[in-house]
Amino acid sequence: SRNVKLAVVAGDGIGTEVVEQGLRALETAVAGSGVEITTTELDLGARRWHATGETLTDQDLATVREHDAILLGAIGDPGVPSGVLERGLLLRLRFELDHYVNLRPARLFPGVRSPLADPGEVDFVVVREGTEGPYVGNGGAIRVGTPHEVANEVSVNTAFGVERVVRDAFARAAARPRKHLTLVHKHNVLVHAGHLWRRTVEAVNAEFPDVTTDYLHVDAATIFMTTNPSRFDVIVTDNLFGDILTDQAAAITGGIGLAASGNINPDRTSPSMFEPVHGSAPDIAGQGKADPTATVLSVSMLLEHLGLTEAAAKVEAAVAADLAERGDRVRSTAEVGSDLAARIAG
Amino acid sequence: SRNVKLAVVAGDGIGTEVVEQGLRALETAVAGSGVEITTTELDLGARRWHATGETLTDQDLATVREHDAILLGAIGDPGVPSGVLERGLLLRLRFELDHYVNLRPARLFPGVRSPLADPGEVDFVVVREGTEGPYVGNGGAIRVGTPHEVANEVSVNTAFGVERVVRDAFARAAARPRKHLTLVHKHNVLVHAGHLWRRTVEAVNAEFPDVTTDYLHVDAATIFMTTNPSRFDVIVTDNLFGDILTDQAAAITGGIGLAASGNINPDRTSPSMFEPVHGSAPDIAGQGKADPTATVLSVSMLLEHLGLTEAAAKVEAAVAADLAERGDRVRSTAEVGSDLAARIAG
Ligand SMILES: CC(C)[C@H](C(=O)O)[C@@H](O)C(=O)O
Ligand SMILES: CC(C)[C@H](C(=O)O)[C@@H](O)C(=O)O
Repeated sequence: SRNVKLAVVAGDGIGTEVVEQGLRALETAVAGSGVEITTTELDLGARRWHATGETLTDQDLATVREHDAILLGAIGDPGVPSGVLERGLLLRLRFELDHYVNLRPARLFPGVRSPLADPGEVDFVVVREGTEGPYVGNGGAIRVGTPHEVANEVSVNTAFGVERVVRDAFARAAARPRKHLTLVHKHNVLVHAGHLWRRTVEAVNAEFPDVTTDYLHVDAATIFMTTNPSRFDVIVTDNLFGDILTDQAAAITGGIGLAASGNINPDRTSPSMFEPVHGSAPDIAGQGKADPTATVLSVSMLLEHLGLTEAAAKVEAAVAADLAERGDRVRSTAEVGSDLAARIAG
Repeated sequence: SRNVKLAVVAGDGIGTEVVEQGLRALETAVAGSGVEITTTELDLGARRWHATGETLTDQDLATVREHDAILLGAIGDPGVPSGVLERGLLLRLRFELDHYVNLRPARLFPGVRSPLADPGEVDFVVVREGTEGPYVGNGGAIRVGTPHEVANEVSVNTAFGVERVVRDAFARAAARPRKHLTLVHKHNVLVHAGHLWRRTVEAVNAEFPDVTTDYLHVDAATIFMTTNPSRFDVIVTDNLFGDILTDQAAAITGGIGLAASGNINPDRTSPSMFEPVHGSAPDIAGQGKADPTATVLSVSMLLEHLGLTEAAAKVEAAVAADLAERGDRVRSTAEVGSDLAARIAG
């Protein structure tokens, strides 16, 4: 029997509601398999910040590190100034735990209506860099609030950082039937960063000769995402472009209510973190309306990452079956959760 | 009678083909109105660069400045290294001529098929900042080509630059029926630049009390662009987010074959430049296949900018009528051009 230590950051708003159902799916998926899940709930997010002013202490971080993985719900409420929890908690976790692969699958499940008239088969995955780019927090401003204010933001890109995420993306592409990797950047304008990405993709391609590659400027990528999303297999891109493209990808595949993600440290030097792409949705919080599907799919990714492949597949299959028969039924968060649990239990 | 001095940069690939039809529309629209157009063709772009290594000389720039406006087709071919003509010619024109308003209307004309299943009425305009942000060329790299390479790109944002474009966007919103302005940024991550934009919108709002405002993170904006584009009236955003969103906006309103743009200097200290959003499309160049509609719509914006409101309206009405009856007919570039000219001539 194996023990998995899971850190749970339910967070704010609908975060607590969807995580409850995510944990239910998780427990059900491993039941009887000899895997035992021990959870530690961490009090992080807006509530804690309002009460104590703390976002993430060294002690919190040390606690998190003692775990095998993290399940996160959603962080934030409108009472917290913009950036405080994003930079101080969410991004800090990604950076401190070196989550350099931000993995975001985009799949149009049968039964799910796309806002596109003719989406075709959509099944791609975005490998978004998670520890560099414009997200590094290397910005500043002078003469703030005066007519002479200058505010800068620096995108930092290193060969080390780009190469490791590009290699991960190639490995994922090589393991898929189509074996195709698309680099998205804007190298005709951001020439220094862009050319580093481009050269890196060319160089690493030598290690994966089976994988075909192409390149799209980020603006053109949003067009293809609208007119021909089937063309994508694996996309590799920087932190900011990945943020933008994955929300668009979620939109065309049924909405962020279904979009899962993994903040992965492939070297396993620290726990990886799995979370729905959506936020804390204060407008519907506490009403049992939130769709826990994105969290349950994130649980499937978590299981996959832990090597519990069979359990991961069961969870994904349960979601696929539920979506196929969902139609226009309105169910509560708990109802969706128990329907999914029932399917997982099989 | 009035004389308008127009600098024409037809450029490369389909650029020359579409500009020919754009000029035809222009001439037809002003015929008999007492306005005389004198054109100067400038040899700029890939051909010139291959022949001479020049992108834009001081003499070229001086010549351009002697004109009332610029009509640009498209720049670039695959033989020119990425960034050379973009930074050295296209962006240099925008920066030197202080085109701080990059105006990009997004309208779903009746008769045009959107890739969205249920687009609703789409009629918004993006005011993209044109002289700052990540486009300033303030980047660099060290240890290039080694495992220790670091490549940075700096987004520079000034109170001066943000305020003037925000004020322009408010004025445009105030002149529209819905009077709504949406700021798009990512102020929860790019906190310094983002907060400058946010504070500026709040401050300038006092001068336009009729205009309502809201805010979207750029990732969320791509979702609404997919699920509810009707919600947008005027969008104001930075140079890079504007680049991305306007390609997506073009995609949902029928493609970049229809997307017009103006690089505008509202202070009229130098000529403004009008161009289709699409590129030189080397794959279809020289075949008479390119749709000149985006260029003709750019001509309408050019006329509007010159105060030739009636001529501008005639051109736009001709395009609208053509699109309404276009259906699936395949016409050559010249055929579309002459159909449009016939409608403009009325
Ligand atoms: C909340 C925010 C900091 C975050 C991001 O920009 O990465 C979110 O949009 C996401 O995509 O996970
Ligand atoms: C060609 C390129 C430099 C340009 C830009 O990024 O602005 C283009 O994409 C556009 O939108 O006009």
